[in-house]
Amino acid sequence: MALADLARTDLAAFADAQRAAYAELKAKGLKLDLTRGKPSPEQLDLSERLLSLPSGHTAADGTDVRNYGGLAGLPELRAIFAELLGTSVGNVVAAGSSSLTLMHDTLVQALLYGRPNSVEPWGVEDVVRFLCPTPGYDRHFALADRLGIELIPVPMSDDGPDVDVVASLVADDPTIKGMWLVPTYANPTGSVCSDEVARRLASMPTAARDFTIMWDNAYAVHHLTEVETTTPDIITLAAEAGNPDRVVVFASTSKITFAGAGVAFLAGSEATVGAYLEGLGYYSIGPDKVNQLRHVEFFGDAAGVRAHMAQHRELIAPKFAAVQRVLTERLAEHGIAEWTDPAGGYFVNLDVLDGTAKRVVALAGEAGIALTPAGSAFPYGEDPRNRNIRLAPTLPPLAEVEAAMDGVATCVLLAAAEELLG
Amino acid sequence: MALADLARTDLAAFADAQRAAYAELKAKGLKLDLTRGKPSPEQLDLSERLLSLPSGHTAADGTDVRNYGGLAGLPELRAIFAELLGTSVGNVVAAGSSSLTLMHDTLVQALLYGRPNSVEPWGVEDVVRFLCPTPGYDRHFALADRLGIELIPVPMSDDGPDVDVVASLVADDPTIKGMWLVPTYANPTGSVCSDEVARRLASMPTAARDFTIMWDNAYAVHHLTEVETTTPDIITLAAEAGNPDRVVVFASTSKITFAGAGVAFLAGSEATVGAYLEGLGYYSIGPDKVNQLRHVEFFGDAAGVRAHMAQHRELIAPKFAAVQRVLTERLAEHGIAEWTDPAGGYFVNLDVLDGTAKRVVALAGEAGIALTPAGSAFPYGEDPRNRNIRLAPTLPPLAEVEAAMDGVATCVLLAAAEELLG
Repeated sequence: MALADLARTDLAAFADAQRAAYAELKAKGLKLDLTRGKPSPEQLDLSERLLSLPSGHTAADGTDVRNYGGLAGLPELRAIFAELLGTSVGNVVAAGSSSLTLMHDTLVQALLYGRPNSVEPWGVEDVVRFLCPTPGYDRHFALADRLGIELIPVPMSDDGPDVDVVASLVADDPTIKGMWLVPTYANPTGSVCSDEVARRLASMPTAARDFTIMWDNAYAVHHLTEVETTTPDIITLAAEAGNPDRVVVFASTSKITFAGAGVAFLAGSEATVGAYLEGLGYYSIGPDKVNQLRHVEFFGDAAGVRAHMAQHRELIAPKFAAVQRVLTERLAEHGIAEWTDPAGGYFVNLDVLDGTAKRVVALAGEAGIALTPAGSAFPYGEDPRNRNIRLAPTLPPLAEVEAAMDGVATCVLLAAAEELLG
Repeated sequence: MALADLARTDLAAFADAQRAAYAELKAKGLKLDLTRGKPSPEQLDLSERLLSLPSGHTAADGTDVRNYGGLAGLPELRAIFAELLGTSVGNVVAAGSSSLTLMHDTLVQALLYGRPNSVEPWGVEDVVRFLCPTPGYDRHFALADRLGIELIPVPMSDDGPDVDVVASLVADDPTIKGMWLVPTYANPTGSVCSDEVARRLASMPTAARDFTIMWDNAYAVHHLTEVETTTPDIITLAAEAGNPDRVVVFASTSKITFAGAGVAFLAGSEATVGAYLEGLGYYSIGPDKVNQLRHVEFFGDAAGVRAHMAQHRELIAPKFAAVQRVLTERLAEHGIAEWTDPAGGYFVNLDVLDGTAKRVVALAGEAGIALTPAGSAFPYGEDPRNRNIRLAPTLPPLAEVEAAMDGVATCVLLAAAEELLG
């Protein structure tokens, strides 16, 4: 029976039961962490062979990877990820180890010099604003905010951002210079941008001629089921719509091989890639090509990446299943929470009773279960309904995921009962 | 006899002889490159063991280096380079693989947010200017110019920049926000900043309260003789002078292990490091700690780095000796050129007869000897005396260095004779 339908005395009894359960939970002295989307040690072990690679130091074209140069990255690695990202090698740059850094560099270049199709640098405008599909990735929002870009939330749907809202906002407002988007297995909802939404994003009229979609395809190959979703080829869609420079694509191997010690990728039109490399040439004499060759040898080809990701799936799918199982068993009947069941990515989006998310996170924290701060998935950390919690189950062992989720469920129920009792 | 003292007929005969020598040179069809300071394959071979490291994946404090985190870098690697840079581990960050990128990031942060001791971001000023000890490093100048910073040349002396000129300029002009400096074995002159000059730079009154010395200690341990010069501890000198945030120190292992695939370092006061990490935290979730652990295992300790650099010296000192030998044999008697004899670093600075540097580089290029474009070592590429040429002898094999220098000498003599004939 839904909590909201209980008689007040029954609700009070329910709350008492949850308080007792919560006291038991605290007594366990847990120390569990579901805060960040980090791979587990077992996942990292899948790439242990990288530590003794590369076997040589020469790239396919004879380049000595130990020396300077090759600003765009090794062609053979770019080719592998061009295939995985559904684009061409000439549209892809392999640079550094962090896609977040490439996003930062892209925005800094836009602010200081403009994008290829800009009339002026963004930095000369009084106001620069970005649409933020919400709930979304907290680091995206913080990065843009840090650079002085104002954040405007737009709703996230199952098939990507609410494109009617997006199209309506960008049509008339030239201060809206861009938007964030994780197209596949979005952080945290797991939603996948459909071809139709992608086509509309690529073709919609925008008041800002240099409107830019920051297309963060962080989870392109991070499937949790045997269905390997294909991300829309946004670069081609944008070109076909006459807006070739509208999109900058990002990806990395951080959640494929080693987090922070992998390779990051930037992709886009010829002008987008050219402008990026022109700027990069002022502050880099070439990327870590040794690490790039290491990854080429490790993967072999795109099929090698896919096979590697299937091993990741075997390790983490049971953890996601455990989240579903515990949440369903503990919460479903009470009608006070909803959650996603993602087909890929790193997160489960949990919406608890309106007004209780902060309380749930606080209760969990006191019981030794660290959760991402409530509101993190919203611009400026402000969840207007105070209901959203992001769950990241990949890092802890399965038994800890189960224990943590059971504890979280207790906190969700207790907070809901308190809230309903008023 | 000096060319300038020759009778005109003798000078004409000398020019004819050089023309003949130049024709012979061209006929050889050489293809030699002295343009950039790149390590040779033999130098890179010294670090080949890195390719099969690290042997494990756990840092000294138990951190799994394969996962996210540790923004400041591995303490054990920072400790090694703190010792080599003459500072403390808490003053050093290990980040990325390129010190040039760290310089860029530092200037971008200064422009967008200011330095720790700024009143406002540099970017709100109408004009921001930097002093450029000249001849200097072309990439420093291009990087600042790209960011809209105006470049003011100041003379480079044997003991560092002409500190009288520097102190005089910065005392009254608040638009001068900083200066570049390679303190040890400067690019390209090889000069070493003395303790006295460093002390004055650290303590001189500056009209800009946030005047910043970009102290690029790229060649701190790159000795060409058995004398291991110690760079002044500018961080302590600045702190003692009451200007703790005046200096940002940069270094990397690019010319120690693998160029572009090493580790870069930033050092400075607690506020400098803190501000850098605060900014970095918006666009990085930690550096490539696997590569850092790889370097820790490879070096062992600071003594390991010094021993490794002695092996580099054995490989490249003969090339620098060859440059001296050929230049002395071919040019000394003619009084039309001067050159440095550096005790470390990667370059020899050659000053030819005023007005002939571009002609020398063009002649050499036509004969298949690639030299850095004349004027490169000056802000905006403008050498007012058109006499400066940077020689980079590390990359080619010894025999090629000798052949290239012999060819360069011919070009220098031909251009000088032509110039004197008018």
